[in-house]
Amino acid sequence: MKKSLIVALASVGLASAPALAAADWTYEGPRGADRWGQLHKDFEKCEAGIMQSPIDLGQANATGDIDVDVNWQAGPLTVLHNGHTVQANFAEGSTMVSGGKSFKLVQVHFHTPSEHTVDGKAYPLTAHFVHAADDGALAVLGVMFEAGDANAELQKLVDAAPMKKQAAQTVAGASFDPRKLLPEDRAVYRYMGSLTTPPCSEGVNWHVLSTPVEASPAQIAAMEQAMGMNARPVQLLNGRLLVAPE
Amino acid sequence: MKKSLIVALASVGLASAPALAAADWTYEGPRGADRWGQLHKDFEKCEAGIMQSPIDLGQANATGDIDVDVNWQAGPLTVLHNGHTVQANFAEGSTMVSGGKSFKLVQVHFHTPSEHTVDGKAYPLTAHFVHAADDGALAVLGVMFEAGDANAELQKLVDAAPMKKQAAQTVAGASFDPRKLLPEDRAVYRYMGSLTTPPCSEGVNWHVLSTPVEASPAQIAAMEQAMGMNARPVQLLNGRLLVAPE
Repeated sequence: MKKSLIVALASVGLASAPALAAADWTYEGPRGADRWGQLHKDFEKCEAGIMQSPIDLGQANATGDIDVDVNWQAGPLTVLHNGHTVQANFAEGSTMVSGGKSFKLVQVHFHTPSEHTVDGKAYPLTAHFVHAADDGALAVLGVMFEAGDANAELQKLVDAAPMKKQAAQTVAGASFDPRKLLPEDRAVYRYMGSLTTPPCSEGVNWHVLSTPVEASPAQIAAMEQAMGMNARPVQLLNGRLLVAPE
Repeated sequence: MKKSLIVALASVGLASAPALAAADWTYEGPRGADRWGQLHKDFEKCEAGIMQSPIDLGQANATGDIDVDVNWQAGPLTVLHNGHTVQANFAEGSTMVSGGKSFKLVQVHFHTPSEHTVDGKAYPLTAHFVHAADDGALAVLGVMFEAGDANAELQKLVDAAPMKKQAAQTVAGASFDPRKLLPEDRAVYRYMGSLTTPPCSEGVNWHVLSTPVEASPAQIAAMEQAMGMNARPVQLLNGRLLVAPE
């Protein structure tokens, strides 16, 4: 289960899996987010899970100082569109240490609008940096974008983003530095949740930076045009531990 | 799944379920804790889960002020032995509010030695107060006992504790006040984990009080005699959020 999850995370969109073809899902309509749990037996957590993501972060029930060490580096720009999101895959070498454990950066993908909300407010764009440890444990670092100045590093992604489903392609000569999508302040909300897309697997270490970064209205619009509305609605906290920055 | 879990928590030991007879488990030996995941397909989380309990609490990766409101009351003393632990069931009316959610107190059971450890150190006895919300979410409050003065309320349980598997019996005329098993200081360790016995279901809101209470050596010995060694070994934190009191 764990290894297959990592493979799925890295290879999503690269090949169509016939066994899952019957379980194509969308955000709205008859195969929309409120029915994911009924589309495939492997998706049952989407409906029966009690530690699901995203959530509203305004309902934090603890404050704490969470130590997150981001040890990323620049590398090739490899972009794909998996039919649901625009995603960039990373080469080996970038890690994040959280909770005393080291996780390798696998990919970043985007949602318009943001999936997590703060006191009911969504941001127009969010990036989810997905990390996996050698044993299969997952950690995601989310960053919110608000309308403002253009982000030059994000522009590389915007320029390379396929407008529809397309396998991964490496942009010749490009260097992409994921650190340039992060704010200086690394304070995070932290909780245990799930993948926000089927199969909605739980046990995911969620971190969402409380400080947003800026992207231009044109950049946000371009990402939205490429992906459409791809935000799962917020899920119940169910009394879970949710730590906000102090 | 959720409702059946609550039923299992409340009725365990009251009736033998033939379907599970093949999955009898123990703490040591060929059906011991290191093999639970292979005994029954419903037990697979015991082996494949990545949010398991107990854990060592000394590896906290955040500090925070966790608000736990214990609203318990005294009631009848109903005791059983399910073959693994001595347990007292509670009548309706006692609740715990944590994470903004209200959980009803269902039962308390005991382990010798404690299952959670602190920097590798186990206490000789622990009580786990199991709460369930109406939607099936679970919250446990754990309290550690160290050798010292006798606890008069615990003595009621010691006196009533069956020495082997026995269905629930209410002690005529007895009143049991679970509040008297708690320390005054309600500071807790908090993390998301699992049941510590098969089926090792995850999504459990764990709270362990950082201040132990006292029980006499004779009380601890009596509980150990009734239950034997019934502590699951500590499980991997897997980078999970673990908050220690400030």
